[in-house]
Amino acid sequence: MKRSILTIPIQKVEAESSRSCQDLLAVEEPLEIRLGDRTVSITMRTPGHDFDLAAGFLFTEGILQNSRQIAQIHWSTSEGNPRQAGNSVTVELAPGVEIDFSRLERHFYTSSSCGVCGKASIEALEMQNCLVLPRDVPKIERALVHRLPDALRSQQAVFEHTGGLHAAALFNAVGGLLVLREDVGRHNAVDKLIGAELLAGHTPLDRHLLLVSGRASFELVQKALMAGIPILAAVGAPSSLAVETALRFNMTLIGFVRGGRFNIYSGASRIE
Amino acid sequence: MKRSILTIPIQKVEAESSRSCQDLLAVEEPLEIRLGDRTVSITMRTPGHDFDLAAGFLFTEGILQNSRQIAQIHWSTSEGNPRQAGNSVTVELAPGVEIDFSRLERHFYTSSSCGVCGKASIEALEMQNCLVLPRDVPKIERALVHRLPDALRSQQAVFEHTGGLHAAALFNAVGGLLVLREDVGRHNAVDKLIGAELLAGHTPLDRHLLLVSGRASFELVQKALMAGIPILAAVGAPSSLAVETALRFNMTLIGFVRGGRFNIYSGASRIE
Repeated sequence: MKRSILTIPIQKVEAESSRSCQDLLAVEEPLEIRLGDRTVSITMRTPGHDFDLAAGFLFTEGILQNSRQIAQIHWSTSEGNPRQAGNSVTVELAPGVEIDFSRLERHFYTSSSCGVCGKASIEALEMQNCLVLPRDVPKIERALVHRLPDALRSQQAVFEHTGGLHAAALFNAVGGLLVLREDVGRHNAVDKLIGAELLAGHTPLDRHLLLVSGRASFELVQKALMAGIPILAAVGAPSSLAVETALRFNMTLIGFVRGGRFNIYSGASRIE
Repeated sequence: MKRSILTIPIQKVEAESSRSCQDLLAVEEPLEIRLGDRTVSITMRTPGHDFDLAAGFLFTEGILQNSRQIAQIHWSTSEGNPRQAGNSVTVELAPGVEIDFSRLERHFYTSSSCGVCGKASIEALEMQNCLVLPRDVPKIERALVHRLPDALRSQQAVFEHTGGLHAAALFNAVGGLLVLREDVGRHNAVDKLIGAELLAGHTPLDRHLLLVSGRASFELVQKALMAGIPILAAVGAPSSLAVETALRFNMTLIGFVRGGRFNIYSGASRIE
């Protein structure tokens, strides 16, 4: 099992003094995601929950539609290349499941990479079976939103030590924390979380709230939508395209959740 | 000219009250980067300095080695597709400059996407003309590092309004701020900055310090190294692979630069 934290010697400098000490770093290493014998993606990630990450990535990018399409997930055999050890995951498809790899390439061009304008990005999501969410379901209380940052922080294991990780946390509609994942890449934290829920048979996550520790980009809104998540809350700011996409698909998008305040950018009617 | 800030109506919620108001968002839109008639990359970015972004990306990814290889940079002609307007840049090569596109694909596999372990990532950089930096040049004063966050904040235009942007700032060895760029993507802010310097004929940036507003990932260390930058300072935490790479190439890597403190992860001898 690979480590997600590494200890190294550093120099700590304050105003006039400095001293040598040991410090903890979040590990960053590449993960290759293979579908059968094809490389689909290489992402820089923090080791841990790598099978969830592979499943989540394939699902939130629209390449797989459900967990029944997956026969097995295993570490790739290295073919005499020891450098891949623990850094390459293979997803084997169930019998009869076909992936059109030429479509896959077009997909990465038009959707993951989002077309060449915001409008095209949103259209690509629509073409990809991404449904408009039903209005006003679920309803959550305003006080629940105020409690989110503390709930996240109390459960974050690695961030406490390194300050170097993004977190994603899934809550139910009464504020219970269900799953938390951390990663150097914010999209990886979300893919690990959604992948875990997918493999556990819990998708769609249509009664849930997703909290992310950083900013809300288009990519995170897209991934949440693919899992049917109706409420996305971010500790940081959303981007313009994140808001436009949330409005289009009836997602509730909340930003700057901290210090007893938050901003609602879309779908305010879900907040009581 | 596309805007980098957008105004939208939101609801601001405090403990018990909420009110409607206007808020400012950082714009996020895709940019297609073309080399002649080939699409090389599509990245989600904040509009502005797009020619610099294209040049910087091609340079920091090792696809182009100098600005003389560029004949011209222009907006792509849309071929009847109005959606590309302002979101696609074409870099035309100078006569006689050849790009091996089959190598380009391999490059993105092994380097931009970083091979399949940290060791392979570092080896890919070495194979890519990325030189080990000369030791101890330049020397900078500790007080200069303490002043960096204020210098950055005083110049950040869009972040002040939106809280939604990453910044990258280039300083000389006595702490003078030379260039500042902001973007929703941290790698784009760095590419815009390095691209501006490349096109102005200022590379290599071997007497300079680069400050980034967020965390220091492998990708940012890689891009700084490609431009010859000897000192990288981050307001946030570095990752394990960022530190390993900095150590390997004699780069000074500083993290958590804030509140009168910082940590030195590599190359402490450049700090006096």
